[in-house]
Amino acid sequence: MLRFEVVHQSKKSRARVGRIYTQHGIIETPNFVPVATNGSLKALTAAQIDALDIDLLFCNTYHLMLHPGAPIVESAGGLHHFMRRSKPIITDSGGFQVFSLAYGGVHQELKSAGTKKHDGGVKKISEEGVIFRSYRDGALITLTPESSVQAQKALGADIIIPLDELPPYHVEKGALKKSLDRTHRWEKRSLDEHLKNRRYQSMYAVIHGGIDPNLRAESCRILSAQPFDGFAIGGSLGKDRTQMITMLEQLMPQMPYEKPNHLLGIADLPSVEAIIPLGIDTFDSSHPTKCARHGLLYTRNGNITIAQGKFKTDLAPIDITCDCYTCVTYSRSYLHHLFKAHELTAYTLATIHNVRFMINLCRAYRQAIMDDAL
Amino acid sequence: MLRFEVVHQSKKSRARVGRIYTQHGIIETPNFVPVATNGSLKALTAAQIDALDIDLLFCNTYHLMLHPGAPIVESAGGLHHFMRRSKPIITDSGGFQVFSLAYGGVHQELKSAGTKKHDGGVKKISEEGVIFRSYRDGALITLTPESSVQAQKALGADIIIPLDELPPYHVEKGALKKSLDRTHRWEKRSLDEHLKNRRYQSMYAVIHGGIDPNLRAESCRILSAQPFDGFAIGGSLGKDRTQMITMLEQLMPQMPYEKPNHLLGIADLPSVEAIIPLGIDTFDSSHPTKCARHGLLYTRNGNITIAQGKFKTDLAPIDITCDCYTCVTYSRSYLHHLFKAHELTAYTLATIHNVRFMINLCRAYRQAIMDDAL
Repeated sequence: MLRFEVVHQSKKSRARVGRIYTQHGIIETPNFVPVATNGSLKALTAAQIDALDIDLLFCNTYHLMLHPGAPIVESAGGLHHFMRRSKPIITDSGGFQVFSLAYGGVHQELKSAGTKKHDGGVKKISEEGVIFRSYRDGALITLTPESSVQAQKALGADIIIPLDELPPYHVEKGALKKSLDRTHRWEKRSLDEHLKNRRYQSMYAVIHGGIDPNLRAESCRILSAQPFDGFAIGGSLGKDRTQMITMLEQLMPQMPYEKPNHLLGIADLPSVEAIIPLGIDTFDSSHPTKCARHGLLYTRNGNITIAQGKFKTDLAPIDITCDCYTCVTYSRSYLHHLFKAHELTAYTLATIHNVRFMINLCRAYRQAIMDDAL
Repeated sequence: MLRFEVVHQSKKSRARVGRIYTQHGIIETPNFVPVATNGSLKALTAAQIDALDIDLLFCNTYHLMLHPGAPIVESAGGLHHFMRRSKPIITDSGGFQVFSLAYGGVHQELKSAGTKKHDGGVKKISEEGVIFRSYRDGALITLTPESSVQAQKALGADIIIPLDELPPYHVEKGALKKSLDRTHRWEKRSLDEHLKNRRYQSMYAVIHGGIDPNLRAESCRILSAQPFDGFAIGGSLGKDRTQMITMLEQLMPQMPYEKPNHLLGIADLPSVEAIIPLGIDTFDSSHPTKCARHGLLYTRNGNITIAQGKFKTDLAPIDITCDCYTCVTYSRSYLHHLFKAHELTAYTLATIHNVRFMINLCRAYRQAIMDDAL
């Protein structure tokens, strides 16, 4: 299991530089965690992923459970061997996908002010767990704290996550409290299951409570009293970035200082700028890779939409300061052409760039923290 | 311009091992020429292409003319620099795409026995050239022998091809003869335009005549009397493999022995087995890369359809004897999973394998010829 060390605490903010030591290598923090949902960072090979210096990669248990199935991955030697990644991997519990299919994301909710109900395949939520229909073949699947942890044991990620319920953003306080209490019971059961056969794996608790400061504080208090190896912040983070930052400003000082903190599902650039000074160590999101596949490329001077006509004749790289394969090899003009021609290579090259941009950005943040400049 | 040497003539057949020396390197023959239509071998980066040892790569002038446009590629330093390929490239004239859009391929034709007429954007064919509408923006574009060669000069491939007309398979003999005569006049004009500013480029004539042995012989005689650097076999190759092979058996002994011979648009495995003993030096086709993207993978023991359920737990590589990145890195089980999950990386890994399989197959053919075993 992991060991965490704070290498340097900034004198200017709660930002810190740290190192998470795992069976498969060291995770330098703060750091961005790209999402390889199906055990594949979309459009990249293992060699291309290795070249990006990604310290931690996020895979989704929900998807891998439905295909090819955790036992298949286990008999292939585990997720590291199956997808040929030698460095650390984190998996989630599967709960997020089950419940976000049921309730929709906060954006869909906001459109209907929470009045629209759809079950998205969720058949029953009980104390035991959740029963849902596979989106692949309609099979009924029961996900419990124990079965989620067993699946994550089979996958074999370095860091695993207990089953939680993701209540919708528009939830009454009473229902949110009931959900929170059950989530805490589920997390306890997940931890117990994990501790039966810990191996090299570590488990991060997921702190819930929506945007209610008292519930967040309660969740933090209850979960940090248990022997989790790290703490992730999950559940609804609010309807916009301002609500999320307000919540984190209140919550972060209560988080266990000596354990790594992970923010689930956030990696847009303005949020990253806000959360690192609050002491977030790692954060995952498919946002940078999704942007890449839509031709939205990151640069030191802001994002560019590479399909715009002005890039047709632009012989400069995406970002002159970037050391990624795409930038040292190709021009904006060629990338523009690939996107306009809908060439698959466009998605590969853009993904390489955006991920490497995030990795380099985090390295720069670490240096700024070391220099007490952040 | 190129120099061709026959390294070894098989004692058993017309098959020969040769070397084509060009400005950008040596092409060992017989060899497979993958098709990178838009200046991108679909789903691969330049580094991945380099690792495959592809001696000659085919790009389509029609597509590059429409986007980004030959002048854009020229100002980017030419196609080699634009797409970051240091080794030889061949481009076609653009005529094939214009006419195949107009007449459809032989398979579409066979369905309607040639009775269905559609212009596919072709507005006018005259002695001057062909006027067609861009499939991208509807702009009217005139393609003449001179403009095609000028575009190919701007692209800067090592080997270029004169403008020809591609008559449909179901054409009356009189119309085929008229088309052939005009094609010969177009090829002569193309050669004249090329010789005005030869640079390092070489031009292959395209021998036409459909499946009429007399017209093929006439085309071969007329074109081989002119200073072309090599000879491609184009036009309709018949309605099936048997017709094509019969035509090639008659034609090949008439082809200039001391010049490289290229077969346009054919690279399925049974055809390859038949054409190499007939003396074909190079052959291009998008067939192996298309098969790859559909999950049809080549092995020494026949093709496999990787999405089939039996591969879900198969931990062997696609082909145990293959040295490609995909085979030395991943299992069939992982590839099966990527195809079932519609992951983009599937197309990359499958393309790497099928192309490398073809490259290795041709290397084995060369060895067999050296050994007089073929």
